[in-house]
Amino acid sequence: MTHVIDAIRNGVNTDQMYGTLDAIKAQPELGAFRFRARNHWIDGAHNRTTIQGFYGAGQEDESRDEPFVIDAGEPAILLGTDTGANPAEYLLHALAACLTTSLVYVAAARKVRLTEVQSTLEGDMDVRGALGLSDEVRNGFSRIRVSFKVKGDAPEEKLREVVARAAQRSAVYDIVTNGVQLDVEVATA
Amino acid sequence: MTHVIDAIRNGVNTDQMYGTLDAIKAQPELGAFRFRARNHWIDGAHNRTTIQGFYGAGQEDESRDEPFVIDAGEPAILLGTDTGANPAEYLLHALAACLTTSLVYVAAARKVRLTEVQSTLEGDMDVRGALGLSDEVRNGFSRIRVSFKVKGDAPEEKLREVVARAAQRSAVYDIVTNGVQLDVEVATA
Repeated sequence: MTHVIDAIRNGVNTDQMYGTLDAIKAQPELGAFRFRARNHWIDGAHNRTTIQGFYGAGQEDESRDEPFVIDAGEPAILLGTDTGANPAEYLLHALAACLTTSLVYVAAARKVRLTEVQSTLEGDMDVRGALGLSDEVRNGFSRIRVSFKVKGDAPEEKLREVVARAAQRSAVYDIVTNGVQLDVEVATA
Repeated sequence: MTHVIDAIRNGVNTDQMYGTLDAIKAQPELGAFRFRARNHWIDGAHNRTTIQGFYGAGQEDESRDEPFVIDAGEPAILLGTDTGANPAEYLLHALAACLTTSLVYVAAARKVRLTEVQSTLEGDMDVRGALGLSDEVRNGFSRIRVSFKVKGDAPEEKLREVVARAAQRSAVYDIVTNGVQLDVEVATA
């Protein structure tokens, strides 16, 4: 019982974590995942994404009984009615969430108990790009600033190391920093 | 009244759209936006983002009375308890939502009435990268496939043009394809 309690660090079961890592080390093909999202347009800037199944660890994962349903929108100034956060804001959320989870997992592995993790993200965008008014500015963010506040039972230097390692291992940080090859296909009937 | 009805296309008020475009053309500095997200860790893979204000069109936007609150998580196989979609899935949502809204706005501007827009996105990720088990695979998606189904009152060729133009103008498509400069700062006290 004491061991079980000790094994939970930052809400992460480290026994399960090491078990997963060992299993993938022994059988590297278990590391191949495919994540998915389905979206449909509702009206104007309002569209809805459904997320449920994914492929991973050698099989289709069917552990989620219900899908996650996520609505997007735009504020009035960008011609919407605020039916949800806008897509660029969701990208900031994805980045914040990934860095935070990476940080929490890295800390668990390094025996650092965290007491607080907060972050504020801000992205600069000249919307003349996306609105088709200028080819001299890009469509997306020109720059993103991430500011973390982290507290835990470790010296400042160790906490900073954990954050740095989290950024080095975060999936969304990698995607947003380095880009990804994207293939788009269209059916019209 | 007839004009008002005609001006609404795909749920987008095209009078307002042209008004916005004209205003930013006349005063390009109105195009400078800053979007924001605040995140805090709850437990394990569970963290929560709050999104509300942003800067745009020359001022702080305060039109949203309530924040959007978005929870992230991980499935059991990735050491979470499904408290929300995972960060990589949210990134796919951001991409789907941005491409869809771009498509709907482009169609509105080009006088195409859409009847259906659906998309399916799938991203390949070898999680050995993010889990720190391999330096030979990247942490993020190695590839993302986007499949659109679009219907409307225009010939197939025009619908395909609208999708192509949407990708050329989508903010999140640009970010995910080309990457963004990211600055991370950390406070530990």
